[in-house]
Amino acid sequence: MSAMENRYVIGLDYGTDSARALVVEVETGKIVASSVKYYTRWKQGLYCCAAENRWRQHPLDYIEVLEASVKEALAQCPAGTAEKVIGMSFDTTGSTPAFVDETGTPLALKPEFAENPNAMFVLWKDHTAVKEAAEINAACHKEGAVDYTMYEGGIYSSEWWWAKILHVLREDAAVREAAYSVVEHCDWMPALITGVTSSKDIVRGRCAAGHKVMWHESWGGLPPQEFLSELDPLLDGYRDRLFTDTETSDKPADRLSQEWADRLGLTTDVVVGVSAFDCHMGAVGANISEHAFVRIIGTSTCDIMVASKEEVGDKLIKGICGQVDGSVIPGMTGLEAGQSAFGDVYAWFRRVLEWPLKNLSGLDGEALEQACDRIIPQLTREAETLEPGAGAVLALDWMNGRRTPDANQLLTGAITGITLGTSAPMIFRALVEATAYGSRAIVDRFRREGVRIDSIIGIGGIALKSPFVMQTLSDVLNMPIKVCNTDQACALGAAMFAATAAGAYPTIEAARDAMNSGFAHEYQPIPANVEVYDRLYQKYEVLGRFVEDQVK
Amino acid sequence: MSAMENRYVIGLDYGTDSARALVVEVETGKIVASSVKYYTRWKQGLYCCAAENRWRQHPLDYIEVLEASVKEALAQCPAGTAEKVIGMSFDTTGSTPAFVDETGTPLALKPEFAENPNAMFVLWKDHTAVKEAAEINAACHKEGAVDYTMYEGGIYSSEWWWAKILHVLREDAAVREAAYSVVEHCDWMPALITGVTSSKDIVRGRCAAGHKVMWHESWGGLPPQEFLSELDPLLDGYRDRLFTDTETSDKPADRLSQEWADRLGLTTDVVVGVSAFDCHMGAVGANISEHAFVRIIGTSTCDIMVASKEEVGDKLIKGICGQVDGSVIPGMTGLEAGQSAFGDVYAWFRRVLEWPLKNLSGLDGEALEQACDRIIPQLTREAETLEPGAGAVLALDWMNGRRTPDANQLLTGAITGITLGTSAPMIFRALVEATAYGSRAIVDRFRREGVRIDSIIGIGGIALKSPFVMQTLSDVLNMPIKVCNTDQACALGAAMFAATAAGAYPTIEAARDAMNSGFAHEYQPIPANVEVYDRLYQKYEVLGRFVEDQVK
Repeated sequence: MSAMENRYVIGLDYGTDSARALVVEVETGKIVASSVKYYTRWKQGLYCCAAENRWRQHPLDYIEVLEASVKEALAQCPAGTAEKVIGMSFDTTGSTPAFVDETGTPLALKPEFAENPNAMFVLWKDHTAVKEAAEINAACHKEGAVDYTMYEGGIYSSEWWWAKILHVLREDAAVREAAYSVVEHCDWMPALITGVTSSKDIVRGRCAAGHKVMWHESWGGLPPQEFLSELDPLLDGYRDRLFTDTETSDKPADRLSQEWADRLGLTTDVVVGVSAFDCHMGAVGANISEHAFVRIIGTSTCDIMVASKEEVGDKLIKGICGQVDGSVIPGMTGLEAGQSAFGDVYAWFRRVLEWPLKNLSGLDGEALEQACDRIIPQLTREAETLEPGAGAVLALDWMNGRRTPDANQLLTGAITGITLGTSAPMIFRALVEATAYGSRAIVDRFRREGVRIDSIIGIGGIALKSPFVMQTLSDVLNMPIKVCNTDQACALGAAMFAATAAGAYPTIEAARDAMNSGFAHEYQPIPANVEVYDRLYQKYEVLGRFVEDQVK
Repeated sequence: MSAMENRYVIGLDYGTDSARALVVEVETGKIVASSVKYYTRWKQGLYCCAAENRWRQHPLDYIEVLEASVKEALAQCPAGTAEKVIGMSFDTTGSTPAFVDETGTPLALKPEFAENPNAMFVLWKDHTAVKEAAEINAACHKEGAVDYTMYEGGIYSSEWWWAKILHVLREDAAVREAAYSVVEHCDWMPALITGVTSSKDIVRGRCAAGHKVMWHESWGGLPPQEFLSELDPLLDGYRDRLFTDTETSDKPADRLSQEWADRLGLTTDVVVGVSAFDCHMGAVGANISEHAFVRIIGTSTCDIMVASKEEVGDKLIKGICGQVDGSVIPGMTGLEAGQSAFGDVYAWFRRVLEWPLKNLSGLDGEALEQACDRIIPQLTREAETLEPGAGAVLALDWMNGRRTPDANQLLTGAITGITLGTSAPMIFRALVEATAYGSRAIVDRFRREGVRIDSIIGIGGIALKSPFVMQTLSDVLNMPIKVCNTDQACALGAAMFAATAAGAYPTIEAARDAMNSGFAHEYQPIPANVEVYDRLYQKYEVLGRFVEDQVK
């Protein structure tokens, strides 16, 4: 292991509002330095329109935070650290694609497109392509058609690649003329800093391609050109100009270019790894293993599993968000699921209870803000003292539709079993229980489809901050839940991939085992609660079926 | 009509917390004076236990407020008014029975029982007799049995006469030994002031007997002694010691006794009418007529109709609270229904929204109270600006179970269609709509059972104070709603009955036509809203059927 000693990698995590750079010791996984930088143009609200759900990010934002965060992180390290950096990897949000010209340059970096939102990255949460997504779904689900959405959950989202690029192609003649190909945010970052000068040389990560671009081995990569052209002749020629091969993130993309070595203060020996989405690298950073269900729990959840070829093989897991060979750990199938609202369910109730504070309390400014901030902590304190299923209030957590199992955005939330004695803390407890039942519905689906789940690993804000929610989750799932010892699992995961791509470890599993930061806490199910929740969960299922029947 | 000129009657309305005396001009119905007096012992919480749902009232409370309110009201009148009073009638809450000795004296008026709650009036809302009510229902509904509850809605309540007296008989040996018979609060008041000295001479009003004591002509009055003794041998002999005949409230009970003429400052010429329950006299005070549905709308609703023999005859109206010949207007069948929560549904949501004000605003004392008092007005203002069925939120109003149609106390309320954008005013609007849908369910039931309803008359706090609720109700019911010009409809109704009993009018209808106070406002349904609500009501019914299925 002496080759690793005093060697470092940089993990870069590009979120919605900011990017984080971690400098990590290769041998131990110890985080030596970190820096967070916010996207300047994005922060000013440029190029976006909330009313149209149009969310675009300028490539210069990405470039600027890269330089600033890496330099700031390195500046915190002992002198000489920069020379000992052997690898860098990125994770980003997605699907966040942008049009590029033949050199692989995002159009917005060219002077004539510098202010055109359609020439920028179309952020994951942009919903301008609702119509195009519907057309793609219709094309995939019509009688006799091959369903190219089958490994992506069976329903193509307006948040994803093809819907977005088709939308922009239709909307913007100038972009249409100038565009040669398309790049996903996570694939562009390595291309940028390794000095790629031809669109064809961009290394495409398996994760984004498999989860969002309908890439699958069984149909030879991307869907056939006829399928694309039938969607719209504007897509003519794109299949050839895009890509056929993809790579897993344990592989190097290339080495750092001279230009970027200079800009970042690193050497051209630095290996730049193939990138992936944040949750997928985050799952590795959180110490994922077979049969462990990793949940990034925040406003919503992103749930990641890995399954062996023996367990899943070519079998299609029904009703989840996607399954892609190697999207998390090479050689295993990465499985993705998620709840479309988790913390957002509590935030909804918080907003309801903010109403009297904002309208009737006479408070304003900071005092109002502080009172509002105390709503969930105070609800938690009171709800904790209640029994499971207190007051027979039963809620359904579909306030933002349902992502898994079986995506359906038309579904809505509910609160039932209300009596004149039903209090705000009782409702809150029911909402927490409902989000846990929603989690159980996902776990049950995986198991019914033959995927074994033994334990839960929790990361994200709620996992770290709410013991009440995590205990309830453990009770409802009747499984132990380990909570990660770091709030930087995504960037740490990127560092593990960087170390593997740079050859310091033979496999990402070896990097994970050596570099993980362990668990801060393990919740154990309380048997008496397990029994109660097992019974109540049946009622949740009945309520869910009723609500589902209403939107059919 | 000269016989009426300068003649007065006194209407006495005994509510849960206080009694009101009105001095009313016989010829015009003009209210000349009024006085409200609170029950002293009740106000101190004596003899009651909220935890056991035990609510008892001392007969001395009733006596004291009678004297105080009548005297205070008369004192406001021009000199000589007292001599011109020709009649008095009472309405009271019910079923509120008390045990009496052979002289007709409530046991609590005897020194040895002065502090014994079981010797007092068992207030309508006392729920100590849940077990006894269940036994009565079992006895009435067993194979081959006569269902003596059939004209009282088919389900005997723990709030009613037989359940309560059986409970007290079982619980209290001393009362059991001393008791001779039982009197309903409304029947005791005339007995008291007309100087009845034998339990057998107490005149029994048709209203209380028919709605709560299982009295019906078809089985010769009260249920047979065998039925009662089979419930419990403790009821042996009660049928004979109770009563066979009942009287409608247009009839005199007797004239004022010398003692009470002296105590009240009236003459012994004053005719005291047969009494009834508050809602029944209130319906007359509110100008009830055939095909008009009178609703006393407060925390709950009490709904009263009258139907001709031609319309209803002997037909049993299914799923309402009761039907009694002459309980409202002699010669017509009085029909009773009601929602077990109406304003209480809004009060529930108010309490939920009070939680942040009470726990997090820093307000206390009067400032807190004022902020809480502004919740419903402010919600109303914001909800009014929303569209019908705003945000697709749909609620069910069964937070206190369901009284009609088809009583079921196990049912609970619900809020469905919740999204992350659902606001407090949207929920409030949905709750208001839900209480209106609950009203429509009652109206629909009456109509399905062959009872014609053309319009609504509203009285009670909410009818007078919330145009938003009343307009919504008019839209949902697609009927005009007239709101009474008085907030004293019950006492005014009692005055009309007093005038009729005293012979100033030949019938209660004539008294009603001459003495009513007219309508303050008439709401008209808004056609566009009617259409929307008609569609949404189908969804309310589907939701209701689901919740009902869950408790089966």
